[in-house]
Amino acid sequence: MASAPAILRVALAQINVTVGDLGGNTKKILTYLDNGREVGADIVVFPELTITGYPPEDLVFKPQFIDDNRRCLEEVIQATKDITAVVGFVDAQRDVHNAAAFISNGKLIGVYHKIFLPTYGVFDEDRYFQSGDVCPVYSLPGADVGVNICEDIWYAMGPTVVQADAGAHVIMNINGSPFEVGRADQRRSFVSTRAIDHGIYICYVNLVGGQDELVFDGGSMIINPKGEIVAQGKRFDEDLVVADLDIATVLRHRLKTPRQRKQSLVYMGQDIGSEVVTVADGRTSLPKPPLTLPEVERLSTAAEAYAALVMGTRDYVRKSGFQRVLIGLSGGIDSTLVAAIAADALGPESVVGVAMPSRYNPAESQDDAALLAKNFGFEFHAISIEPTFKVMLSTLTGLFEGTEPNVAEENIQARIRGNILMAISNKFGWLVLTTGNKSEMAMGYATLYGDMAGGFAVIKDVPKTLVYDLSTYRNSLQEADPIPVRVIEKAPSAELRPDQTDQDSLPPYPVLDGILQAYVEEDRSFQELLGLGYDEATIKQVMSGVDRNEYKRRQAPPGVKITPRAFGRDRRLPLVNKYRGY
Amino acid sequence: MASAPAILRVALAQINVTVGDLGGNTKKILTYLDNGREVGADIVVFPELTITGYPPEDLVFKPQFIDDNRRCLEEVIQATKDITAVVGFVDAQRDVHNAAAFISNGKLIGVYHKIFLPTYGVFDEDRYFQSGDVCPVYSLPGADVGVNICEDIWYAMGPTVVQADAGAHVIMNINGSPFEVGRADQRRSFVSTRAIDHGIYICYVNLVGGQDELVFDGGSMIINPKGEIVAQGKRFDEDLVVADLDIATVLRHRLKTPRQRKQSLVYMGQDIGSEVVTVADGRTSLPKPPLTLPEVERLSTAAEAYAALVMGTRDYVRKSGFQRVLIGLSGGIDSTLVAAIAADALGPESVVGVAMPSRYNPAESQDDAALLAKNFGFEFHAISIEPTFKVMLSTLTGLFEGTEPNVAEENIQARIRGNILMAISNKFGWLVLTTGNKSEMAMGYATLYGDMAGGFAVIKDVPKTLVYDLSTYRNSLQEADPIPVRVIEKAPSAELRPDQTDQDSLPPYPVLDGILQAYVEEDRSFQELLGLGYDEATIKQVMSGVDRNEYKRRQAPPGVKITPRAFGRDRRLPLVNKYRGY
Repeated sequence: MASAPAILRVALAQINVTVGDLGGNTKKILTYLDNGREVGADIVVFPELTITGYPPEDLVFKPQFIDDNRRCLEEVIQATKDITAVVGFVDAQRDVHNAAAFISNGKLIGVYHKIFLPTYGVFDEDRYFQSGDVCPVYSLPGADVGVNICEDIWYAMGPTVVQADAGAHVIMNINGSPFEVGRADQRRSFVSTRAIDHGIYICYVNLVGGQDELVFDGGSMIINPKGEIVAQGKRFDEDLVVADLDIATVLRHRLKTPRQRKQSLVYMGQDIGSEVVTVADGRTSLPKPPLTLPEVERLSTAAEAYAALVMGTRDYVRKSGFQRVLIGLSGGIDSTLVAAIAADALGPESVVGVAMPSRYNPAESQDDAALLAKNFGFEFHAISIEPTFKVMLSTLTGLFEGTEPNVAEENIQARIRGNILMAISNKFGWLVLTTGNKSEMAMGYATLYGDMAGGFAVIKDVPKTLVYDLSTYRNSLQEADPIPVRVIEKAPSAELRPDQTDQDSLPPYPVLDGILQAYVEEDRSFQELLGLGYDEATIKQVMSGVDRNEYKRRQAPPGVKITPRAFGRDRRLPLVNKYRGY
Repeated sequence: MASAPAILRVALAQINVTVGDLGGNTKKILTYLDNGREVGADIVVFPELTITGYPPEDLVFKPQFIDDNRRCLEEVIQATKDITAVVGFVDAQRDVHNAAAFISNGKLIGVYHKIFLPTYGVFDEDRYFQSGDVCPVYSLPGADVGVNICEDIWYAMGPTVVQADAGAHVIMNINGSPFEVGRADQRRSFVSTRAIDHGIYICYVNLVGGQDELVFDGGSMIINPKGEIVAQGKRFDEDLVVADLDIATVLRHRLKTPRQRKQSLVYMGQDIGSEVVTVADGRTSLPKPPLTLPEVERLSTAAEAYAALVMGTRDYVRKSGFQRVLIGLSGGIDSTLVAAIAADALGPESVVGVAMPSRYNPAESQDDAALLAKNFGFEFHAISIEPTFKVMLSTLTGLFEGTEPNVAEENIQARIRGNILMAISNKFGWLVLTTGNKSEMAMGYATLYGDMAGGFAVIKDVPKTLVYDLSTYRNSLQEADPIPVRVIEKAPSAELRPDQTDQDSLPPYPVLDGILQAYVEEDRSFQELLGLGYDEATIKQVMSGVDRNEYKRRQAPPGVKITPRAFGRDRRLPLVNKYRGY
């Protein structure tokens, strides 16, 4: 047990690591250890799988990768003089574990193995890791510390109760918890409840940054035994969150609260035991400058979604090594929003817009695109697809003889545009951003190898109704509207045939988005959708549209997940699938 | 315990079901129950998740889907008069299980829940199901039968040992086991060992048919307690495998073999118990016609791979509801092999070939394509891409001014071809088959939205060296070579610039395929590859080629898995990934 209660100064290192960049991640850990020393922290706590980045996926199957990650941990251990640290890494002895190293004064004191391995939604941890079965408590002078990892804190009968029973005053819960709209509020209320349940401090440290389709939004927090926030990290940015934990309050709290009497943990038929490891010299004697805790404002839905899209786009582009991005600008709301996000994420000098008019685009569309480029200050070109479209149609005259114009001729235009964008991309090495939204992707209202051609689909998880909200939100950030108001107000159209509008083919977007949320995110049945008041024909149109277009989405580029259930690894449906729930 | 030992007539229904087609699958089950009655079977055994098809993936998250599947099971139960059956379905009480119903004489006698849930390779069962914890034995007059599911038989300390200890004479092991080259031999030797281990009969029934990227190859088998094959199902086709099991041999065998004394099973800290359920009327009194057991020939690597590609292509196309397929024919070996497979899978009347020559294609290429079409008897067209290519280049003159021709101009050609094929596809509703092989896919030696454009990538998991073997194999099946010999003999080329050959950009294929197998399938490190004798520069070229092109493969269409590790769900690597193992 720890000696007389004291103040423990904790620093949560909410950092942006890159999957696979073992050397770069390790360097950043060392920098933040120094930052922790500067503020007089006793302990610096890093997020889940800090060294490898999260999620490392099948890199974990490479023995060399595991060895390299272990060598990096050794480097961190050597650098952890006169301070204590918790660092995430992949531990492989006989089995492979998602692990947290507890390091103090240049020594590896112990290793915790994650017990609850998420294998749902976007997570596949059972594919890679074995569960741990011990819940250590590290007894520093004056404070006993339990360490556990992410999902572990979500179980009432999880390691936190074992560690609290064994006397922990503080839980260091290290996370790689991805963003979705509203998730930060859930986490806060959830972690508060756990702190009250067990009468302990909980230090919740999260990753920050984009990784493929996921955005880790930061928002690390330190919660006291009453469930109150003591300190909080920024959203969508790196941060070092520092606070002083008054360990005596834990003891006072426990003495008075009968709910914190010992609870036993029986999990899957096993007793999960605790072990207490004494760390005699595990407190720093570094000077402790006075702390001021910055305020962190709560973000609106539009604000947090926009920030997630900006960070997800920036990190995908920059971590993949691209200097510039290329966007086909139709003058419509989707490509406009994508260009705004790209300009905010990368700076206007990194953005190139190309309008590619045909016979079906009114002049206004190109004007709107040009005005957008001017307002945001990025490079803009216009290239007509008419000459190529004409030749292509005449090339196919023979084969198409006697047929009526249909979607084939429409898609030819979209695919010529895709070809032009990719040619520019191949010539100059710029990444093409695609501009389809979630409502379109759901219904297959997009052309494979046409407007779906590109490396990153910025708003593929943004329903059309939210596309409008985000555009309005972006305009609210500055005096003059950078997004032309006409773009927000005109009727949406693919402009692939005369006088076309989206609503020729799709239900009104508020209706469509309502049904999509119920069907795609919540797996509601046809009967339940009827019960929600939608009409039968519309429900069938939407359900069959979603079901029939899985093959298109399978070939779509990745994009930022912002809803509870994105298309892709979050929703895995067979392509050959004869199930019709209507 | 069963009464006096007898002969049990078993029928394994190796059927081709379709994922989600609950009604169709149920109908097929009823048909095979009748087939079982006709041959006087006491028990008809169906494969894993018979009713839903395998793998149902996130369909399992739809409550309506589970209800519908349960209703179908009820229909099967009603139809199981005067006979016994084992049928796979999704059982959802509090938890959701991959389950096997034991049905006899119109009654559901019991349900087995799969214990070992594969969550590796292409499998994600931990995402959907909870493990079972009871191993029932169904005691029919004269024979005690244990039921378990697929992965369960692969564990020495699994349900088979519990059921054997509890007196089972026969294990019905129901499978959805996907094909890969050589897998059938492994299964046979493995299941034989288990039969010997426990001194029992094992009836191994497998699905047959294609589902997205997987092919289930059938090859069901009945193994006696000495590990010998009693009867065997066809490969790559539906079958009813019937044999008489002499239960007395199990008892004789046990009396003499000390290895079959009771073994206990402790799994994950739990005792997994057995229960014996007596089924008093669980034997049929149907007439038992004499049995002749057909011989099943062992297939060569080329033969089984070719059969898998044919079945995978046929089932993807037909189960998706397409009448015809469209293939861009370059006159090269890859598109030639794909056309041969398609013609064999669907019949030549369902295949349309299109040659799309440019300035860089020698006349011979188109001649070879035309000859191929003639030999196989499918429709053939030629459409020049020159006019479109010229206009497209002139459209880009302004932007490309001052640049040297590079991959941009090459890819424009491939993407015009993609556009033409997709336009024809959109016009007539034909499915485009793509023609890239695994070696190309590995190295990104293919054009996104160009030759990668299409709905099904027939040979994406076939290494180039095997492409040659398969072509030679196909020619060996008939007198006159349907695949023009010049196609097999000429140097492979993309024909996108003057005098181009694949070996300008890639190592010789035998070397490339050797490194790819070691790196992609076996996760060998750079040092290990050096140890295998490859030269350093080539290893680095291949490793970096594979690593850099993950983004292309992510947007590729699905295709038949035939190797131990296909790209796709079998090998899940991050796109943003800074790990370099060289």
